[in-house]
Amino acid sequence: MTPTGRHFVAGAAETGGGAPFHAVEPTGGAPLVPAYHEATAAQIERAAAAAGAAAGPFAAVPSATRAALLRAIADGLEALGEALSQRVVAETALPAERVAAERARTCGQLRQFAALLDEGSWVDARIDRGDPARRPVPKPDLRRMRMALGPVAVFGASNFPLAYSVAGGDTASALAAGCPVVVKGHPAHPGTSELVGGVVAAAVQRLGLPAGTFSLLHGRLPATGAALVQQPAIAAVGFTGSYAGGRALFDLAAARPQPIPVFAEMGSANPVLVLPRALAARGERIAEQIAASAVLASGQFCTCPGLAAWCDGPGAAAFAAALNARFAAAAVGPAVHATIRSGYERALDELRALPVAVAATGAGDLAPATGVRPTLLTTTPAAMLQHARLLHEVFGPSLLTVPCTEPAQLLALVAAMPGYLTATVHGDGDDFAEHAELLAALRRKVGRLIANGVPTGVEVCSAMVHGGPWPAATDARFSAVGVTAIERWVRPVCWQDWPQALLPEELRDDNPRRIRRTVDGVVE
Amino acid sequence: MTPTGRHFVAGAAETGGGAPFHAVEPTGGAPLVPAYHEATAAQIERAAAAAGAAAGPFAAVPSATRAALLRAIADGLEALGEALSQRVVAETALPAERVAAERARTCGQLRQFAALLDEGSWVDARIDRGDPARRPVPKPDLRRMRMALGPVAVFGASNFPLAYSVAGGDTASALAAGCPVVVKGHPAHPGTSELVGGVVAAAVQRLGLPAGTFSLLHGRLPATGAALVQQPAIAAVGFTGSYAGGRALFDLAAARPQPIPVFAEMGSANPVLVLPRALAARGERIAEQIAASAVLASGQFCTCPGLAAWCDGPGAAAFAAALNARFAAAAVGPAVHATIRSGYERALDELRALPVAVAATGAGDLAPATGVRPTLLTTTPAAMLQHARLLHEVFGPSLLTVPCTEPAQLLALVAAMPGYLTATVHGDGDDFAEHAELLAALRRKVGRLIANGVPTGVEVCSAMVHGGPWPAATDARFSAVGVTAIERWVRPVCWQDWPQALLPEELRDDNPRRIRRTVDGVVE
Repeated sequence: MTPTGRHFVAGAAETGGGAPFHAVEPTGGAPLVPAYHEATAAQIERAAAAAGAAAGPFAAVPSATRAALLRAIADGLEALGEALSQRVVAETALPAERVAAERARTCGQLRQFAALLDEGSWVDARIDRGDPARRPVPKPDLRRMRMALGPVAVFGASNFPLAYSVAGGDTASALAAGCPVVVKGHPAHPGTSELVGGVVAAAVQRLGLPAGTFSLLHGRLPATGAALVQQPAIAAVGFTGSYAGGRALFDLAAARPQPIPVFAEMGSANPVLVLPRALAARGERIAEQIAASAVLASGQFCTCPGLAAWCDGPGAAAFAAALNARFAAAAVGPAVHATIRSGYERALDELRALPVAVAATGAGDLAPATGVRPTLLTTTPAAMLQHARLLHEVFGPSLLTVPCTEPAQLLALVAAMPGYLTATVHGDGDDFAEHAELLAALRRKVGRLIANGVPTGVEVCSAMVHGGPWPAATDARFSAVGVTAIERWVRPVCWQDWPQALLPEELRDDNPRRIRRTVDGVVE
Repeated sequence: MTPTGRHFVAGAAETGGGAPFHAVEPTGGAPLVPAYHEATAAQIERAAAAAGAAAGPFAAVPSATRAALLRAIADGLEALGEALSQRVVAETALPAERVAAERARTCGQLRQFAALLDEGSWVDARIDRGDPARRPVPKPDLRRMRMALGPVAVFGASNFPLAYSVAGGDTASALAAGCPVVVKGHPAHPGTSELVGGVVAAAVQRLGLPAGTFSLLHGRLPATGAALVQQPAIAAVGFTGSYAGGRALFDLAAARPQPIPVFAEMGSANPVLVLPRALAARGERIAEQIAASAVLASGQFCTCPGLAAWCDGPGAAAFAAALNARFAAAAVGPAVHATIRSGYERALDELRALPVAVAATGAGDLAPATGVRPTLLTTTPAAMLQHARLLHEVFGPSLLTVPCTEPAQLLALVAAMPGYLTATVHGDGDDFAEHAELLAALRRKVGRLIANGVPTGVEVCSAMVHGGPWPAATDARFSAVGVTAIERWVRPVCWQDWPQALLPEELRDDNPRRIRRTVDGVVE
C-alpha cells in the first residue's frame, strides 16, 4: 500500500484541499512524496457533522461490534507489514526496532480495549432498586452506567506516529467508548497517518458502521486544529504534544459557547532525585541509567528524564563525572521532525541565557535536518527557584542537573515544581524513610512515582497513570495510557423507574452480560 | 447558638471585613441581624494559603479520621436542633418540613461518605505486578489508587441552604476525598452558613486536623468568589447555582495560569414528554403530577420541570385543561431570596417578549419580598426551534407547554434541546417502543431519564446522576449527588517498583484494609 495524499472524510477518501505540504526526509530535509493538502473548512465541517450524525448510532451498536472494530484495526495494522514500518522510518527516523515495538504496542492497546468491551464491567453499572413502600416518599428504581460522550477530536503526536496518532491510545479508547473520532493527523508523518487511516476507514466500512464513525484530516496550520475543536458536534478533545499546542486547544475548547473537555498530555521534565545511600553505593550505575534514558531515541519521549538533583556527599563526584562521560559519549541522533529540532535548540538557548552551564555534549554532525545533540546542563538550587523556565520540559536529549549541598534545598526544589508526568527517586536502605517528607511532596506533583528505575518505558496496563497535575496534563483526573483512558470519553447516565425491556442490557435484572455491578451498594 | 457574623478563616472565627450586608426576612424584606461582612482579599488569601498548607497533611490522615470528621459534622448539625431550623426558615422561607427533610438528607450524605471511607474500595486500587524475567524488557510493578486533588473552593447554593451549602454534598465529598475546603457562603443565608460553619470548624479542631482544612468566607460580590477561584492554592471548584454564575467561575478557572477543574451544576429546564397512550389513559393525573412538581416549594429546585410537550390526540384537551386548572389553583409562595424573585420575573418577561402566551397564573398577593407567582405558559413547536431562550431554564414555579400536532415536531424539539439534568417521559403500553428514536435522542441530552414520574426528589444513592451535558453542568462526566460525587476531587497516582513498606496500605500485597482491588486485571 502506497500513500497517495488522502484524507478520509466520514470514511471516504478525498485528496485535495488547501495549501500543499510534504513530510520531510529527516536526514537531508528533502520533501517526501506524495503532497498532502491542508484540510479546508468545508472538509472539517463535513467530518464533524458526520461524526455528530454517527454519534447516536455508533454508541448504540453492540459492544461486541466495537470490539470487532478495534481488533480489525489491529489486524489491519499488522497486515500493512513492511510498507507501514518503512514509511514510519522514512518520516520520523525512529529506529526500525522502536517502530516494530511501537506497532506491537499500538495493536496491543487496541486489543486491550476490545477485551475490556468483551468483559463489559467497565461501564460501572450501579443499580439501586426501588421501594414503593418507603415512607414518606417511595424510593425510585435508579440504574446508571457509562455512555459515550460523543465525537472526539484526536490530535496525533509527532513522537509516537503509531501509538499516539491516528489509531493510537486516544482513538482506541474513544472508539471503545462508542465515540466517533475525527483525527487531525500530525503533519510530521502524514503518510503514516494515511496508511493507518485507510485501515481504520476500511474496518469501519467492513463492519457496516456509520460513515461518520471515523475521519482523518491532514493539516499543519494551527487554524485547522482550532476549527476542528470549535465544531459544535465535537464533544471532547484528545491531544498529545507541546504545552503551547495543548494550552491553545484547551483555551479554545473552554471558550466555546458549549465548552468541551480537553485531555491534553503536554509533556514533563520528569525529575530524578538521587538520595545519599544510593548515590554512595551505586552512583555511577544510576548515572548510566539516567543518561541512557535521557538520550534514548534522541529523547523523543514525554517521559524522558530532564532534571536530576542530589545532595553533595560520598559518590556525588563520581555520579556527576559518570553523567558527563555518558553525555560526552552519546551521539547526535535524529529528532522525529525538523520542527522538534528547532524547538530543542530554541529551548537550549533559553536555558543558556539563564545561570546554566553546559557540562557535556554528545558528538556528531548536526548536518541532518533533524539532528539533535545530547546536552548535559547544570545549574544551582537558587537558580531553579528564581527561574521557572528551568523547571519545565526541554523536549529532546538534554538533562539539567541541580547539585545541592543540603536536603533543605531538595525540599525547596520539589516544593517549587509544577506538575509532571513522572518523578523518579533512587534510594537504598533508610534513604526513603529518612526522606519521607520529600517523597510526600514529590508524590503530590506527579502522576507516577518511580523507585530506582527510569521514567521512559510506559507500560500499557490498568494500573498505569500517564497524566498528572498541570502542566503535565490539562486534567489530572485521567490517564492517557491503559484501559482507564476510556474514562475520559464517557459520562454516567441514570435511568429512573424504567421497565426492564427498555433498559440497556447492562442494567437489566437478569444481567445477561454477567458483568460486575454495584447493586444496592454491594458489588456482585 | 446564635449567629454573630463570623467567617471561619482556617478554622478561626473572625468578624469584620469589607462592606456589610444582611440576610433578608423573606416576607417583609427587612434585614436580619447580625451583619455580615464581605470577605477581604487578605482573608481570602489566608484561607486559601492555609488550605494549601493543609492539603498534604489532610490527605495523609487515615481515612477513618476523615470518616470521623464527617460523622462529627452530621452529629453537630443534629445537635444544633431548632436553632438551625429556625434560622434556615427565617432566611429562606422554606417550609419547616422541607428544612427538616433537608437536614436529614445533609446528615445522611455526610454519613454515606463516612461509610464509603470505612469500606475503602472507592480508591479504585489497581495493581499490575511486575515480572523481572519478562523479555525484551522487565515488567515493572505498578500500583495505582485515587488521591486527593487539593483544596476545593465550594460555592453554596441559595436553594439548598443545608444540602448544597456549607456542609452539603460538595463539602462532604471533598472532605471525604481528603481535600481541604474553602466555602464561599451564599449571601442569601449567611446565618445558616455561620451556624453550619461553626459545626465544621469545631469538628476539625476536635479531631486535631490541620487548621486550613476548613474555611468559610462570606460575600455577595462576584469579585469575592472570583478572587477565591484565582488563588493559586485552590485545586478545584464546586458550584451549584445559576448558569451565569457557573459560567463566570468556569471561565475564570480556565483562564488561570494553571487551570483547575470546575464542577458547576447550573440548572435545567427538565423537559417532560407525554406520549399518546399515557395522555389518553391518564392525562389529567399526569397533569396534576407535573403541576405539583413544578410548583413544589415555589419551584426552588434545579430539577423542577419547566417544559412539557405532547402531541394532539385523545386526552390532550383534558390534559391541558388540567394543567391550567392546577396552575390557576396554585398560590403565590416565597422564593428563597429576593434576588431569585427578581430573576424569575425577569425570565418571565423575556419569555413574554417571545411568541409565548400566559395560559394560567396562580393566585395570591405578591407583596412579600420574595413572592413568586406560579405561571403556566404556552408556545408552539416552531417558536421553540426559533428562540433558543425557550429551551432554557426559568428558575421558579413556571411551566412552558409545547402542544405539538405530530410526532416529528417532538423529535425536532428534542434534537434542538441543550443538555439537561433530567428528562421525563410518560408512556403506557407500546408508547415507549413506538418512540424509540425519541427516547434515544432524549437520553443523549440528559444525566437522568425518568419514566412515568417527576424529576423533583433527587435520591441520594450510588446510582444517582445529578449532572448532565452543558449547560446543565460544566462537566457531564461527574455527578454532584451520591457517593460517586467524590470522583470530582481525586486523581489517580501510580507507584512504580516501590518497596511494600513505602506503599499506601491500600496498595500493599497483604491488603490490610481488605478492600476490593483489581490485581493483574482481575477484581479481587
